[in-house]
Amino acid sequence: MPDNNFAERSEEQVSGAKVIAQALKTQDVEYIFGIVGIPVTEIAIAAQQLGIKYIGMRNEQAACYAASAIGYLTGRPGVCLVVSGPGLIHALGGMANANMNCWYMERCMSPPISMAETSAVCTAASVIRNAKQPLLIIGKGAAYAHAEESIKKLVEQYKLPFLPTPMGKGVVPDNHPCCVGAARSRALQFADVIVLFGARLNWILHFGLPPRYQPDVKFIQVDICAEELGNNVKPAVTLLGNINAVTKQLLEELDKTPWQYPPESKWWKTLREKMKSNEAASKELASKKSLPMNYYTVFYHVQEQLPRDCFVVSEGANTMDIGRTVLQNYRPRHRLDAGTFGTMGVGLGFAIAAAMVAKDRSPGQRVICVEGDSAFGFSGMEVETICRYNLPIILLIVNNNGIYQGFDTDTWKEMLKFRGATAVVPPMCLLPNSHYEQVMTAFGGKGYFVQTPEELQKSLRQSLADTTKPSLINIMIEPQATRKAQDFHWLTRSNM
Amino acid sequence: MPDNNFAERSEEQVSGAKVIAQALKTQDVEYIFGIVGIPVTEIAIAAQQLGIKYIGMRNEQAACYAASAIGYLTGRPGVCLVVSGPGLIHALGGMANANMNCWYMERCMSPPISMAETSAVCTAASVIRNAKQPLLIIGKGAAYAHAEESIKKLVEQYKLPFLPTPMGKGVVPDNHPCCVGAARSRALQFADVIVLFGARLNWILHFGLPPRYQPDVKFIQVDICAEELGNNVKPAVTLLGNINAVTKQLLEELDKTPWQYPPESKWWKTLREKMKSNEAASKELASKKSLPMNYYTVFYHVQEQLPRDCFVVSEGANTMDIGRTVLQNYRPRHRLDAGTFGTMGVGLGFAIAAAMVAKDRSPGQRVICVEGDSAFGFSGMEVETICRYNLPIILLIVNNNGIYQGFDTDTWKEMLKFRGATAVVPPMCLLPNSHYEQVMTAFGGKGYFVQTPEELQKSLRQSLADTTKPSLINIMIEPQATRKAQDFHWLTRSNM
Amino acid sequence: MPDNNFAERSEEQVSGAKVIAQALKTQDVEYIFGIVGIPVTEIAIAAQQLGIKYIGMRNEQAACYAASAIGYLTGRPGVCLVVSGPGLIHALGGMANANMNCWYMERCMSPPISMAETSAVCTAASVIRNAKQPLLIIGKGAAYAHAEESIKKLVEQYKLPFLPTPMGKGVVPDNHPCCVGAARSRALQFADVIVLFGARLNWILHFGLPPRYQPDVKFIQVDICAEELGNNVKPAVTLLGNINAVTKQLLEELDKTPWQYPPESKWWKTLREKMKSNEAASKELASKKSLPMNYYTVFYHVQEQLPRDCFVVSEGANTMDIGRTVLQNYRPRHRLDAGTFGTMGVGLGFAIAAAMVAKDRSPGQRVICVEGDSAFGFSGMEVETICRYNLPIILLIVNNNGIYQGFDTDTWKEMLKFRGATAVVPPMCLLPNSHYEQVMTAFGGKGYFVQTPEELQKSLRQSLADTTKPSLINIMIEPQATRKAQDFHWLTRSNM
Amino acid sequence: MPDNNFAERSEEQVSGAKVIAQALKTQDVEYIFGIVGIPVTEIAIAAQQLGIKYIGMRNEQAACYAASAIGYLTGRPGVCLVVSGPGLIHALGGMANANMNCWYMERCMSPPISMAETSAVCTAASVIRNAKQPLLIIGKGAAYAHAEESIKKLVEQYKLPFLPTPMGKGVVPDNHPCCVGAARSRALQFADVIVLFGARLNWILHFGLPPRYQPDVKFIQVDICAEELGNNVKPAVTLLGNINAVTKQLLEELDKTPWQYPPESKWWKTLREKMKSNEAASKELASKKSLPMNYYTVFYHVQEQLPRDCFVVSEGANTMDIGRTVLQNYRPRHRLDAGTFGTMGVGLGFAIAAAMVAKDRSPGQRVICVEGDSAFGFSGMEVETICRYNLPIILLIVNNNGIYQGFDTDTWKEMLKFRGATAVVPPMCLLPNSHYEQVMTAFGGKGYFVQTPEELQKSLRQSLADTTKPSLINIMIEPQATRKAQDFHWLTRSNM
Repeated sequence: MPDNNFAERSEEQVSGAKVIAQALKTQDVEYIFGIVGIPVTEIAIAAQQLGIKYIGMRNEQAACYAASAIGYLTGRPGVCLVVSGPGLIHALGGMANANMNCWYMERCMSPPISMAETSAVCTAASVIRNAKQPLLIIGKGAAYAHAEESIKKLVEQYKLPFLPTPMGKGVVPDNHPCCVGAARSRALQFADVIVLFGARLNWILHFGLPPRYQPDVKFIQVDICAEELGNNVKPAVTLLGNINAVTKQLLEELDKTPWQYPPESKWWKTLREKMKSNEAASKELASKKSLPMNYYTVFYHVQEQLPRDCFVVSEGANTMDIGRTVLQNYRPRHRLDAGTFGTMGVGLGFAIAAAMVAKDRSPGQRVICVEGDSAFGFSGMEVETICRYNLPIILLIVNNNGIYQGFDTDTWKEMLKFRGATAVVPPMCLLPNSHYEQVMTAFGGKGYFVQTPEELQKSLRQSLADTTKPSLINIMIEPQATRKAQDFHWLTRSNM
Repeated sequence: MPDNNFAERSEEQVSGAKVIAQALKTQDVEYIFGIVGIPVTEIAIAAQQLGIKYIGMRNEQAACYAASAIGYLTGRPGVCLVVSGPGLIHALGGMANANMNCWYMERCMSPPISMAETSAVCTAASVIRNAKQPLLIIGKGAAYAHAEESIKKLVEQYKLPFLPTPMGKGVVPDNHPCCVGAARSRALQFADVIVLFGARLNWILHFGLPPRYQPDVKFIQVDICAEELGNNVKPAVTLLGNINAVTKQLLEELDKTPWQYPPESKWWKTLREKMKSNEAASKELASKKSLPMNYYTVFYHVQEQLPRDCFVVSEGANTMDIGRTVLQNYRPRHRLDAGTFGTMGVGLGFAIAAAMVAKDRSPGQRVICVEGDSAFGFSGMEVETICRYNLPIILLIVNNNGIYQGFDTDTWKEMLKFRGATAVVPPMCLLPNSHYEQVMTAFGGKGYFVQTPEELQKSLRQSLADTTKPSLINIMIEPQATRKAQDFHWLTRSNM
Repeated sequence: MPDNNFAERSEEQVSGAKVIAQALKTQDVEYIFGIVGIPVTEIAIAAQQLGIKYIGMRNEQAACYAASAIGYLTGRPGVCLVVSGPGLIHALGGMANANMNCWYMERCMSPPISMAETSAVCTAASVIRNAKQPLLIIGKGAAYAHAEESIKKLVEQYKLPFLPTPMGKGVVPDNHPCCVGAARSRALQFADVIVLFGARLNWILHFGLPPRYQPDVKFIQVDICAEELGNNVKPAVTLLGNINAVTKQLLEELDKTPWQYPPESKWWKTLREKMKSNEAASKELASKKSLPMNYYTVFYHVQEQLPRDCFVVSEGANTMDIGRTVLQNYRPRHRLDAGTFGTMGVGLGFAIAAAMVAKDRSPGQRVICVEGDSAFGFSGMEVETICRYNLPIILLIVNNNGIYQGFDTDTWKEMLKFRGATAVVPPMCLLPNSHYEQVMTAFGGKGYFVQTPEELQKSLRQSLADTTKPSLINIMIEPQATRKAQDFHWLTRSNM
Repeated sequence: MPDNNFAERSEEQVSGAKVIAQALKTQDVEYIFGIVGIPVTEIAIAAQQLGIKYIGMRNEQAACYAASAIGYLTGRPGVCLVVSGPGLIHALGGMANANMNCWYMERCMSPPISMAETSAVCTAASVIRNAKQPLLIIGKGAAYAHAEESIKKLVEQYKLPFLPTPMGKGVVPDNHPCCVGAARSRALQFADVIVLFGARLNWILHFGLPPRYQPDVKFIQVDICAEELGNNVKPAVTLLGNINAVTKQLLEELDKTPWQYPPESKWWKTLREKMKSNEAASKELASKKSLPMNYYTVFYHVQEQLPRDCFVVSEGANTMDIGRTVLQNYRPRHRLDAGTFGTMGVGLGFAIAAAMVAKDRSPGQRVICVEGDSAFGFSGMEVETICRYNLPIILLIVNNNGIYQGFDTDTWKEMLKFRGATAVVPPMCLLPNSHYEQVMTAFGGKGYFVQTPEELQKSLRQSLADTTKPSLINIMIEPQATRKAQDFHWLTRSNM
């Protein structure tokens, strides 16, 4: 740190900082996340004086992830403020490219709206009408375009089955009767027409290829980004334009002739049966009484108490994947997870950003941040940030003592008897029975260490009831939980 | 994380991993630091089977910093193992460039040794003999070249005053009678001949320019790197070559004619007087009884109990700068700090690397890691790593509730009464009275919260005595300590 | 060149080449420009066997520029084929990024068509109707979108004055009565509503800022690229979509209510008067009998004989700028110039690409390539390529013995008497009286060295009449022509 | 070109230019190569006023290649001055990286000299003494280090056979009795000890691997660059240091005990016999009377008249490779060729740089630039630069109508009868019988078109006699010359 003398800051720095802060204000910036250091401190102070909120973070990575979430949540630019040099390099984890001390995570102005070509809309409507086994897939792009009204109307008016992608969850509520999330694999595999609303055929959607799809499935792709159209699979129809505007065009076109996809079709029956059997299987697993708990038991209890209006943030491996199938979203843009790239370390930054938005826009609203124990390690020190700003966050750590899986304390101790830990400890193991909840109590928040369904229920109830401080619930599960899950192969991600 | 199914790892991955692990073994790799994930897990396991030690970290940044320290400490390559994609980007904080899943932090083979040109050595010896006010500056390069024997001989045989740079500390012990560290500014300012042993004229040495130096000071630069010679200042003599080999050449040349720099010269007297007065001033400050403690009180008590053979790792602003002047090093390559770039977040990674080396090479040896409270936040979750491997580390957090400075609890509470924290909390403030020691107890280590000299002494004594587990001492100091320090301008870094 | 043994090419190279060639064919590639070398030769041969045309160039820069023009001219991808290593680096002049031996200069498939939001079209139509002093600016984007029909209809139906940008010339013919190119500065300065069709407010359009524009001018921006909307100036209305489709939407909207911009308005009168006076001034200058000729004399004679259907390619400083105001385009996508970045060296590559297209699609059609003498030097050796393939190109070199300006032979000789050329020759001077036409005769083409209007007329006539070989006319002008031009400040680019 | 108004240059530009020019002067810059454009023109003018020579080039590529040669030739920095933007990208062909308008091609100051470790020198001397079949390889690094005196002494005093690499030619004259270039393959294949003086084991030296070398050959590597030591092959001894200084150390060590490698050893006999038979075969080919000429006939005639002190610059495929074996160098640093990467387009830039140096330092000295016809095309327009500055360059174009090989005129015409040239012309063909010499006469130089040995002899004699202007000799050879050469496989590069 070449210069740390806070008192010696120059006039030039101060006035330069004011100019930058004013520019940020003009761009409608509401939140800055950062780590101060000369000369960035001045900018933060100047921004506060103009009414911009400054959230001091503990590592540049988390600051960047927080800033990147703001644009998605509010449509306004999020700013990450770090010192150049090492700080900037740290921040690269959250940024693809940057060459200044501060930058914007999203466009500043809402872009003009474009619509699809009329004739293409016409073709798309016709393809949908003639579908035998139609399916809508609702992606993050639909959430980003605020297309919830129009897509919900489409679903309900024509009785079309739909699936959300991870961040498309909540555009239409997960508990909607047309949601076929619990029969995901079946729906993908047998659909003959699939309409993608801002969803991309990446690995999460198995690239749109057989055997996960019919070889002759017709894709209708609705997207704002011309470059994304036709990647991996050549769509039957492409509708380039603002997703909300295009969905309205589709509705208008379909409205011209009365029509509805028959709710008692064989396709609907197949899907409903599959959903029923999958849900029964999950429920059975969730109701197991054996200890330590398994993932399903944990998530069913969480789901029972989950407030309808909360933000859900999540990262981890099984924690994120299984949690996503059980925890329901009822509102658009209320789920943030590690997403397409599976980037670890995003959770607490995202949760902090969501909590700032919740606090300012809907007092009383909560952020539930569901972390694997390994995932929590990437940015756990941000708990101090959460306590410092007293943010309405409930952290759940689903703790299996490792990455993918770990050992219980007895096995661990036995293992260490032979030789040193660095020689014999499998690389995916973490310390068993870590008391992560103390990382919360260290900073004045509330911490819980829970091992049974009853303790989990109680701690959740207390956390939700106490709106005066953040809390962390450290939930011990079976360290080898993954293995068991694999016995039920229909439970793994690709078969739901 | 596109694929997290540990059980489904392919034959190809396993055998590919073995090849890589064998290659690392052939390159003499002893330690790998990393975060596993498919397909990197296989490499870690294969490496363990070949006797390479694997240390699982919590964030790629810390893993990289740890790996980068290994080369300096052992002369063998340190390896950082991360998943490509987001993990690799996280790891960039510790690497200037990288394009593979794993790489080496240092050359694999010891390079051939080069020597300086004979005539240049001759000239340098003559310049030294004719110096009125000579000074040696011992840098990190001298430590890296294992030049301790030859440089110590040079210092003692010719009675030359010397100064170490931060990571040059310990090449000759800090308590050596020829060490003039306590009169640093004076020595730099009035020397007429300065010999740089692997030290560079960067900002830490004020670029070698007036008014911190005589305008006509003659620099003799001893360095292995041709590109570094003559940066900023044109040296009078440059000796390009291996620093140990060149120092031996210098000794041989000086030995040809009996000579010694007079220990009772005016220059030595001036320096001794200045050292005496500076030390007295520091001691007075250190002996202050007022609470909360100041930096000097803290460091004097730490120094009193500091084991002679320990590693000292440090990062922070004032914590690192003031600590460096008080805490003494007696061995080469036993101090690691945030160094030239002041990179925050290196401390725990460095400490873990040093602890691995200590544990394996000198059982009983300790690592003292001195962190500012803000600095600790960058990688504090690595405390779990420390506990998991039960590493011989004592963490000292010098806690002033902020970056550079913070507030006490009362001021903090008063401040929050007005509006929300994000609006009024100065950007450099952290939560007051954070119980960082609980981050240690959460994982089974020993934690201390200390507010008085007596508590500090006692906790240090206990930590040093208990060799069964790591500990963390959270030392509360005056939150506005910086300000006070500035009243005594002779205490700031540049005047010691 | 690590391996130049043509006979030793491996089976693998041959079959790999066939795969690549087939892929290019599948992508509808019609032309490849390149420089061969192992292993690229095989690809070129395999491509020829599949009916793709291969044009061997003399420098990778020109090859890339040629390939980049093909997409614009034909809507199909142009390919540049170079050896990796040094060849690839040479080629970077024509490419922003590339990491393979071959790549495409344009998207392969025509993208889906998007339209503007209906309400925005409505607003735009209303703004146009209410304009007092409207102006259309037709840019390269309009040409690229093949919007000539719809824009011409808009101009003619509503009697709106329009200006083309350099590469927008010809979308509506330059000699159209509504074209106000000859009153460019006036039109920009006083318009109250400006509709931009695929034109961007960059330096060529003075960034859309006062004093070149009214401070309260309303811009309506029609563009396919959301990122370009609102740069520099905040538009009153933005119409995001395919430019042709959006223009049709505009026409449809305006058609709803009969309306026309009054052809006898004060605005039209002002513009017509300014055009008249500017044209008179240019004509006077063009008719000057003094020798050497000036730019205007040269271009007026060229314009007199310019075939209506020819391609015009141009690069240079004054040569390009003044030539653009005099030489008329009557067809869309028939002008290619150094454009926004003023890149020197693009001319011959562009001309070769245009000539290939002309030869294949409209036999008899000619390419007129107007080069400054300095500009010609960047890729003059491509004349051999032109002769080798016997391309229908007439090269005009407007030769003032320098960059911006030069010296006549006498001054040059006088100057050299003093000291060596490298000491006294001004950096912008080239050799006076260079016989560039011999670079054409060296390869069997026809060359002319002309110094008078009569010689220019005659050589043009002969070149146009002789369809059996390419020709180059080296036109000597006043070396200090720029200076004279500056006396007539209304002649400079920004005041026309 | 955003602004080309030369007259409007601002005061700021002028004074900024002066500062830059003065900085270049201070750095001892003697030559600047560039292409002007605002704001670079000002810098060029300011530099000329300070006595720096400015050479205006026609393409940035050539400018960069010229600048890069200056450091090698003079030991002082060469500067390339181009406009940022497109010009800078063009210039990348000559630069690995650059981010400013101007930069230096070499270090500014001569670096300090380092020596090898005494014990390593001792070992190396012992290995050399015990060699049965020793060989020295003299590389570009030896030339760069000005090690000609010391290496020649080593060769002569100990009677050691040596081979030069392409740019190591002339460090010891090619006609020295110890030079075994004519038995290159044999020497490499059977040597038991090889000392590399600044030569690297890259593809030119077959990576130092069997079967081109004995599996147990011992390499002694003398190099200034630690990173280069031990690449590809692990050397028996490495001597790190300045090559001249280290060679002197070696001489000193070997001098301690009288010794000489026996000139009548079996190794010397083998090498001499092989050289004799290879030379006889080459001579026979060279003496062939059939027309068109072959490569050997051409080069033997050139060699006969080659001035002892000339610079030889060369690029091309067979032209460079075969020419290198026939054309002899007698002085160090007097050969420049396309080198390790085989970069095409470097020839004229290198020749211009060498000619500037020749003109200024040894008036009367000539530069012979030997180009393949394809190679000439990359930067042929620089002939105007050569004429403008009247540089003492003789360009030889060895013209086989193509890249690697081409067709004669009759075959060419026959071929075109079928379909268009782009469909049937093989990609490696260029126009037959191109009169490249007219590219020289176009600018006032002397041009020759030669088809017989007699014409070649005569044109060479005239070119060398006429010191008033540059000349270009366009030498027609058998278009399929490569094929014939392959009948004599002992003539190819790897068997000489």
